Amino acid sequence: MKRLLLTGAAGGLGRAMRPRLAGMAEILRVSDISDLGAVADHEEEMQCDLGDRAAVDRLVDGCDGIIHLGGISVEDKFSKILNANILGLHNLYEAARANGMPRILFASSNHTIGFYRQDEYLDHTMPQRPDGLYGVSKCFGEALARMYFEKFGQETALVRIGSCMERPTNHRMLSTWMSYDDFLSMIECIFRVPRLGCPVIWGCSDNDSRWWSNEHVSYLGWRPKDNAERFRKDIDAAVAKPAPDHATAVYQGGPFVLDPIFSEE
Amino acid sequence: MKRLLLTGAAGGLGRAMRPRLAGMAEILRVSDISDLGAVADHEEEMQCDLGDRAAVDRLVDGCDGIIHLGGISVEDKFSKILNANILGLHNLYEAARANGMPRILFASSNHTIGFYRQDEYLDHTMPQRPDGLYGVSKCFGEALARMYFEKFGQETALVRIGSCMERPTNHRMLSTWMSYDDFLSMIECIFRVPRLGCPVIWGCSDNDSRWWSNEHVSYLGWRPKDNAERFRKDIDAAVAKPAPDHATAVYQGGPFVLDPIFSEE
Amino acid sequence: MKRLLLTGAAGGLGRAMRPRLAGMAEILRVSDISDLGAVADHEEEMQCDLGDRAAVDRLVDGCDGIIHLGGISVEDKFSKILNANILGLHNLYEAARANGMPRILFASSNHTIGFYRQDEYLDHTMPQRPDGLYGVSKCFGEALARMYFEKFGQETALVRIGSCMERPTNHRMLSTWMSYDDFLSMIECIFRVPRLGCPVIWGCSDNDSRWWSNEHVSYLGWRPKDNAERFRKDIDAAVAKPAPDHATAVYQGGPFVLDPIFSEE
Amino acid sequence: MKRLLLTGAAGGLGRAMRPRLAGMAEILRVSDISDLGAVADHEEEMQCDLGDRAAVDRLVDGCDGIIHLGGISVEDKFSKILNANILGLHNLYEAARANGMPRILFASSNHTIGFYRQDEYLDHTMPQRPDGLYGVSKCFGEALARMYFEKFGQETALVRIGSCMERPTNHRMLSTWMSYDDFLSMIECIFRVPRLGCPVIWGCSDNDSRWWSNEHVSYLGWRPKDNAERFRKDIDAAVAKPAPDHATAVYQGGPFVLDPIFSEE
Amino acid sequence: MKRLLLTGAAGGLGRAMRPRLAGMAEILRVSDISDLGAVADHEEEMQCDLGDRAAVDRLVDGCDGIIHLGGISVEDKFSKILNANILGLHNLYEAARANGMPRILFASSNHTIGFYRQDEYLDHTMPQRPDGLYGVSKCFGEALARMYFEKFGQETALVRIGSCMERPTNHRMLSTWMSYDDFLSMIECIFRVPRLGCPVIWGCSDNDSRWWSNEHVSYLGWRPKDNAERFRKDIDAAVAKPAPDHATAVYQGGPFVLDPIFSEE
Amino acid sequence: MKRLLLTGAAGGLGRAMRPRLAGMAEILRVSDISDLGAVADHEEEMQCDLGDRAAVDRLVDGCDGIIHLGGISVEDKFSKILNANILGLHNLYEAARANGMPRILFASSNHTIGFYRQDEYLDHTMPQRPDGLYGVSKCFGEALARMYFEKFGQETALVRIGSCMERPTNHRMLSTWMSYDDFLSMIECIFRVPRLGCPVIWGCSDNDSRWWSNEHVSYLGWRPKDNAERFRKDIDAAVAKPAPDHATAVYQGGPFVLDPIFSEE
Repeated sequence: MKRLLLTGAAGGLGRAMRPRLAGMAEILRVSDISDLGAVADHEEEMQCDLGDRAAVDRLVDGCDGIIHLGGISVEDKFSKILNANILGLHNLYEAARANGMPRILFASSNHTIGFYRQDEYLDHTMPQRPDGLYGVSKCFGEALARMYFEKFGQETALVRIGSCMERPTNHRMLSTWMSYDDFLSMIECIFRVPRLGCPVIWGCSDNDSRWWSNEHVSYLGWRPKDNAERFRKDIDAAVAKPAPDHATAVYQGGPFVLDPIFSEE
Repeated sequence: MKRLLLTGAAGGLGRAMRPRLAGMAEILRVSDISDLGAVADHEEEMQCDLGDRAAVDRLVDGCDGIIHLGGISVEDKFSKILNANILGLHNLYEAARANGMPRILFASSNHTIGFYRQDEYLDHTMPQRPDGLYGVSKCFGEALARMYFEKFGQETALVRIGSCMERPTNHRMLSTWMSYDDFLSMIECIFRVPRLGCPVIWGCSDNDSRWWSNEHVSYLGWRPKDNAERFRKDIDAAVAKPAPDHATAVYQGGPFVLDPIFSEE
Repeated sequence: MKRLLLTGAAGGLGRAMRPRLAGMAEILRVSDISDLGAVADHEEEMQCDLGDRAAVDRLVDGCDGIIHLGGISVEDKFSKILNANILGLHNLYEAARANGMPRILFASSNHTIGFYRQDEYLDHTMPQRPDGLYGVSKCFGEALARMYFEKFGQETALVRIGSCMERPTNHRMLSTWMSYDDFLSMIECIFRVPRLGCPVIWGCSDNDSRWWSNEHVSYLGWRPKDNAERFRKDIDAAVAKPAPDHATAVYQGGPFVLDPIFSEE
Repeated sequence: MKRLLLTGAAGGLGRAMRPRLAGMAEILRVSDISDLGAVADHEEEMQCDLGDRAAVDRLVDGCDGIIHLGGISVEDKFSKILNANILGLHNLYEAARANGMPRILFASSNHTIGFYRQDEYLDHTMPQRPDGLYGVSKCFGEALARMYFEKFGQETALVRIGSCMERPTNHRMLSTWMSYDDFLSMIECIFRVPRLGCPVIWGCSDNDSRWWSNEHVSYLGWRPKDNAERFRKDIDAAVAKPAPDHATAVYQGGPFVLDPIFSEE
Repeated sequence: MKRLLLTGAAGGLGRAMRPRLAGMAEILRVSDISDLGAVADHEEEMQCDLGDRAAVDRLVDGCDGIIHLGGISVEDKFSKILNANILGLHNLYEAARANGMPRILFASSNHTIGFYRQDEYLDHTMPQRPDGLYGVSKCFGEALARMYFEKFGQETALVRIGSCMERPTNHRMLSTWMSYDDFLSMIECIFRVPRLGCPVIWGCSDNDSRWWSNEHVSYLGWRPKDNAERFRKDIDAAVAKPAPDHATAVYQGGPFVLDPIFSEE
Repeated sequence: MKRLLLTGAAGGLGRAMRPRLAGMAEILRVSDISDLGAVADHEEEMQCDLGDRAAVDRLVDGCDGIIHLGGISVEDKFSKILNANILGLHNLYEAARANGMPRILFASSNHTIGFYRQDEYLDHTMPQRPDGLYGVSKCFGEALARMYFEKFGQETALVRIGSCMERPTNHRMLSTWMSYDDFLSMIECIFRVPRLGCPVIWGCSDNDSRWWSNEHVSYLGWRPKDNAERFRKDIDAAVAKPAPDHATAVYQGGPFVLDPIFSEE
């Protein structure tokens, strides 16, 4: 690729992936609403509010690939989610449509299905069961991307990210963890395959305790190599095991299912 | 019921159902953003912009049932859809949560699945394939309703309405038509059943050419009695049969799949 | 048939079906542990404790068909269920095996699946979820019958009876009711079909509010003609509608899910 | 339609349908390898060996619809099946491709799935289990038609005919019978629907004892009206019920499963 | 755990696992109807007839985990199976309910599904097909455990053990073998997971020739490490390969399908 | 085995496998319509036109296993496909039936399902979608083999070969490649298992980018060891990546879907 756009580059996951993406394109355009810090030689930066249509148009202009990590990534007031994840996503897809429809990786979330129990094994066809307004906004995003695919041919990978972090830090993440390396190899597969389509991809490593089946996207050639299991002892030592009836142990979305609807005030 | 709220009461479907709902509650509270016309003795009217949180709170206050036909019901600018169908729906569910969680019938749409072909037979578990921004907003609505059900116990019937009209007026509607009588009996079932849950219900009559299976909601006891087939001859006489490759003949969403994204200007 | 055995002939369902079975065989052998009352010309009676192996052997001897309604049919002490429904059923199948393997209709029960919710639509392949010791004993019976079929060719209809009564008498029975006429026509189909196998058959009429699919046994040619719906108004008038969170409204097994384990004392 | 081709017009089913098809097109072109008898005003006849490529080209020329009942319709020597059902079918599809791809109704057969048991309920996706060389040739035909659909857009209805006769004449036909009226209404649906595709359609009436589900083709609007059940008493009186272990009672293909491979001599 | 109960500790599998379980709890309470041999420092023994309700109550008292290998584990007289596997299991669950509902591992068996063929690949939802009275008693056990889970929240792992032995000793065991190490790691997973539920778990190693899918319980984090394949050559050398039509080669239950019903005398 | 027949031994795949099969039987009978080259000590050769019934009878006589790679293996004139793949296959099965029904490995093809897209993950039950006359002839072969299995007990492995070559040579083969070693170990499994049945087996290695699931035949104990992924860099260097809309990137059958129907002249 010539120019790859990374949104949400100042967020937790964005900061981790940014250096790892160096080799994926000649130029990595990094963007966020927050400060983006120092910019490397192969990078260009564009600060951007996703709710600003014109700004998003400029952001996408000239890119031949988009990794969209931007937006709100936890439960929050609906007004904020509405701006960044709903209006912002529409802006992004309109901008992509006006700019040659570069392939998009959309950071969806396990919170689209957070109300499934942890003893249920999911495939990509099962109906969504979001666990909060954040999860609902990601359901919106999946629907929007799907529509742009069917109507215009815009390709998107709908990556339902579990817990993409340096390492798992609690018992639930023994199931949901995705290593940075595995995410990187997934990104490579997504932008490498001749025809992507608009698949749901579960974003977790090859964890012994996984809940999700990625068989349907084996055509991508992605084989995660990491396994959260090797951190179990550390987690057992550091974190209290959740009570069996606590949401953290019952639901795939974990504590998100307990979040209230945030007040606007 | 003591007080049943009907939103979208000035719209096409709202006007048709409004008199039919007379017997369902002591008071029928009718609402719309448009003028509601004359008000019957058993009715009370409240004009309301769904995007106005406080107004929606007042609208829902005191109701023990809601038939939500309000909002944008065709493809339109995203800003309008965003206000009425997304922000407005969140307002409605927050208002319901604050007012005893009256049971809700949410008018979803076949346009949540409009990109399925007409030779595909659908059940309620199949992934959404919306055919435009309107359809995407209904996907959002289904996700939101589902989340309020799982998180708070708010019950909703997600009625994917086909074509609810006096009579079918083109060939596609031989499959999608739902008579007013059948819709009315569905409404009675929805508010009658002791425990509703949050089911998807396909909104069409017992048409010979139907595309959708409602077996999974037979617990509601709804048996549509009408059949669009009796109008076939009239339609053959009045309307040209669509060409086999035209979207109207290929896709369940019919001409909606051809709609462009509406410009904001 | 020459001689048809009806067990449980003094029970509620037995008393109802006994006269209706008059035409199905030359001789109707009626049996129960309780008094069987007056015996008609075409009948012969044999009082029998199902737990008594030798008595059951005599009971089955000479029969070319068995309608097994006998045993405990509600929640009870395990010792009683063990004797009648477990030991007794083994006795019955051993007796059948020794006597030419007459076709058996085994009265199983909806209580084998009583913990499914009322908004779930079931087919015959779904795992059992019994709602008490009685339901567990019927699961045992289904397993035993299946084994005798696979190992020896003994055919059995596993009829999961809903509520077979004169008429439905509460709201749950609007879903579970099976009329005597429909049960009779089912019995005729079961003993008429050249090859029965060992199918699960859901025992309910063509109720609008049904929960169960009998498509898989359409080869039997059974089409129930009755519909509990015509009793809805009477029930609404006579019985309070259950609260939405009460087991009667939530679970297919209804109040059985609330039964305790009965003490032996 | 202007000109509808009926092949196999001198066969049993062809003779029955020929007069019923009078209204379906201006000209009914009737064809067979055998003598076609008197020709009506609205008919034209063309005798034809399906194995003769040039003759088949002439046969199809000018037709805008084809009902292909021609070929061998029972178990026979492979050389005969090869000529009529395999080489002949390829000839037919090549002729159709060269002549504007008129819509085709292909008379496939229940003998493509004859080795399923009678207590199995089938849908259209289940793998084929042919019961003889005739059935295998129909599997070939379904595969060929499917390929012409995917590669060239040639539409075909793959009608797996059960027993299309005046009336059912044995117990198996209580399940497989299709009345002439129901076949006619199916034909009307097939040539009426704007977009047909290449569906499998089970060819039987609305028999109480049916084995096959046509839900997936409800988009055609076909609702069979007849029911073999009304002939049960006559059949019971006229025909011995098959023994439970006889192929006629065990397999959907009935006695065909017993047919040997016919010797060429 | 403080005290873990192992029933059937004097049986073949019990003797093998007993020393391996040393580290799983402070005290291992070992029990059997037979002599238990020498008792280690971390062990306590209690001889017990499972059919004796009071004895079973004492057995379970004070335990916070149960591995229930006890009872009859091969085909036998029904009276013996009834006492140990049916009455005994009810005793065990009543005792557990009265003693804080410790988590239970129930040794179910592949003989609950023994009549599936070896070329069928099974998942946990497929209907039971027991191959004898022993298998039927295990079906009873699974149903009983399920009911106690739904009614009272009692958690059980329903482990359908294949062949848990030192090594596989015939060709069928190349599919069914579970190594002691793999069983041990499964046990650890079962007692480790915060919320177990009541899942069916197939008890076999990661054998090349496996018949069963454990995907649905990947949430347990169990990954068997052994593979019977490494014993193939030894088995080929030591044991005659079964004839293709012999039950040992045809059915998953192997020779059990040939067992007669044992006479009581 | 005493004598194993290899047909198509002079073809590309035949030449590769011929030396590798040396150890599988005392005598390897190699056959082709073309010249077979030098014959090794453990081999015997028989030149044969598969369309010649008597010759095929002689070919099969005395063999206790058949690896049938013979026939046309690419798109061709129908007359040639008809002779070798249809008439020839019938000859082979009749010869097998007359000669003790030796187990057969039938080289079917991914071109039986070539019109599935590359982003679809297939299992063995999905309906065929052949991509040309060659693929249709393989559908015929699968149907014929299935019928001989059900009717006579003739066992066949229906191996849908992807791309069995020294190494993958284009991007599509990263999904479809099967190494010679993996094919050899599959052959060993097929002739080793006591009871084979008539399964579909997908013929590809353990490629990261695989499209097909072989879970259902894990009873064979086949675990492919190779992975086309290790050739990706070489392929990237040597071959242009296909355009996303080109058939090579869209369809599983790759360029075959573009093949015309070959003219007979």
